[in-house]
Amino acid sequence: MPVPKHSRMSDVARRAGVSASTVSRVLRGAPGVAPAVRARVERAAAELSYAVARDASSLVTGATGRVAAIVPFLHPWFFGVALSGLVRRLRTVGLDTLVYEAGTTGELAGFIGELPLRRNVDAVVALALSPDPESVRRLESLGLPVVFCSRTVPGRSSVCVDDRGAAADATRYLLNLGHVRIAYLQSRDDTGFSWSSQDRVSGYLDAMERAGTHPQVVTTGPGSGGGWRATAELLASDPVPTALFAESDDVAMGALGVLRRCRVPVPGAMSVIGFDNQDMAEVMDLTTVAQPVTELGEEAGRMVAALLAGEEAGRQVRLATRLVVRHSAAAPLDTTHRPTRTHQPIAKEPHEP
Amino acid sequence: MPVPKHSRMSDVARRAGVSASTVSRVLRGAPGVAPAVRARVERAAAELSYAVARDASSLVTGATGRVAAIVPFLHPWFFGVALSGLVRRLRTVGLDTLVYEAGTTGELAGFIGELPLRRNVDAVVALALSPDPESVRRLESLGLPVVFCSRTVPGRSSVCVDDRGAAADATRYLLNLGHVRIAYLQSRDDTGFSWSSQDRVSGYLDAMERAGTHPQVVTTGPGSGGGWRATAELLASDPVPTALFAESDDVAMGALGVLRRCRVPVPGAMSVIGFDNQDMAEVMDLTTVAQPVTELGEEAGRMVAALLAGEEAGRQVRLATRLVVRHSAAAPLDTTHRPTRTHQPIAKEPHEP
Repeated sequence: MPVPKHSRMSDVARRAGVSASTVSRVLRGAPGVAPAVRARVERAAAELSYAVARDASSLVTGATGRVAAIVPFLHPWFFGVALSGLVRRLRTVGLDTLVYEAGTTGELAGFIGELPLRRNVDAVVALALSPDPESVRRLESLGLPVVFCSRTVPGRSSVCVDDRGAAADATRYLLNLGHVRIAYLQSRDDTGFSWSSQDRVSGYLDAMERAGTHPQVVTTGPGSGGGWRATAELLASDPVPTALFAESDDVAMGALGVLRRCRVPVPGAMSVIGFDNQDMAEVMDLTTVAQPVTELGEEAGRMVAALLAGEEAGRQVRLATRLVVRHSAAAPLDTTHRPTRTHQPIAKEPHEP
Repeated sequence: MPVPKHSRMSDVARRAGVSASTVSRVLRGAPGVAPAVRARVERAAAELSYAVARDASSLVTGATGRVAAIVPFLHPWFFGVALSGLVRRLRTVGLDTLVYEAGTTGELAGFIGELPLRRNVDAVVALALSPDPESVRRLESLGLPVVFCSRTVPGRSSVCVDDRGAAADATRYLLNLGHVRIAYLQSRDDTGFSWSSQDRVSGYLDAMERAGTHPQVVTTGPGSGGGWRATAELLASDPVPTALFAESDDVAMGALGVLRRCRVPVPGAMSVIGFDNQDMAEVMDLTTVAQPVTELGEEAGRMVAALLAGEEAGRQVRLATRLVVRHSAAAPLDTTHRPTRTHQPIAKEPHEP
């Protein structure tokens, strides 16, 4: 059967309108290329299904042509999107991606204990993996370059967002709308796995402390089910919060679900903010912190290529987030949750109605 | 540093309370083992992070110890869940999973054209990949065992649900509630990629034809955005359907979103049914067809192991679906979409109010 013609570096250069040496620099992750040019080259390489011919090229110095992506779970929204960015980016430099699920420290230990991994891959990307010292030590025991994605570890190569700053901003947004009783919903599963960066809850606590208000951190199960249960419990508390900041959109969706079931007006009686900006956030009209998840995966792939090309480990990249304002958060009505026409102004010191 | 002790087959046998030969039979996918025993062995193997030592074992006859999972996209819910089942199942027989995104026939061609794949993997799992003859031919040109997951191809090894039967059942459910104008929402993206099995729309058409009612198939973009746009357009049509059957929960969520935005009561003025039963379906109180997605991935992994152990290709496995009745679908009120107290009985021939 006819095998499709393989694209060459010169084809990519022509399509991107740059020199072959620029293509080479981009694909090996070298610095000093303008972001727009880099994006054009990567797009051209992807469109041409260009893969660096491993044996004929010194672009990637790894021995196996494979990278291990270790994820705690594959099913949540975040991982599919990040993995997509990573897999596609690594393909542009001729690297394949092996995917492993190892959520808990114990699973990670068992996984790393299997010697074959050391012969199987050139580098490891740890996607949203708990950066506890034991796990980091185990990963490094492999003797391979490691890139942390969506988590920061001091002195290690990583790409993440400013979880702390973004969470503080979102909390301040609620405070500035006039909310005082703002609960933070965070997820843990049975294994103790933390479903989002600890920096996120720290940012919330920072902002609450600066405002002189009492924080309320509620720990619940993962996903929308966790958000549902935590919010149901909060509706039975006294006093009820007027705003919920969920560590992820999944958790926020669960909160919105139970609020709708209970006919608690959103944002009239309860404001809700999420974190992620997944597709469903728009459908649910959820105000949320948007993080560039595909780009997190892509940048992790770029860092892997750079490390394999000889870059020293330890570079830390931070991608920007932004607050996407929709209709799930507004100034609180009154504090008894009865929908009245009285409302507090957008100010930290609510006046008496 | 201390490397954790490797588990042996005898450890797995002891933990599962079976003989080592039973462990061997289960892990190489041999038939004749009771499902409960098989599950116990697989659980024990997973708990012990047991991996077949490739060089010391004839359990898996492949040369590389790797399987390629080809997915059209990684970000939708379905793929993370199916991949999770596949990756975990393959690990129990010591196989690693390489993940590739190749959604379109063109991408698949480029991908398969890259010779390295032939040396890189022992088998291929095509996850929800279009089974058009050209793609099938290209996959088979690799000369490797191929398992189709969530799609059926005549004569090829596959695992799927009965999309046609399940869709016909869901359609009949709406017909039996008294709906006549039932629109089916299906997704296509720019590349022409079909986001669900063509058997699904066929099942809808079957049921509508048998009931003597006119079908209305609306083709839209993928995901919740597609569902949103299609439903918005339907609200401007005349006559408006009284029920929507969305090919996936994602599409159904978009429909629910726009209906809520437009204050169209669900199920009062519009019933909605989805397909998948993802987590959000419960939150959104969506009536939907539940398919066992993790199990689809697991079964695909089991079939790969069996093929590598010498089983002849061509076995087709069908997993069961079930209709999960929630509150997004009910008997239609009247045909003008005004919420009145008049309602039609649960019957195909509505009587006059």
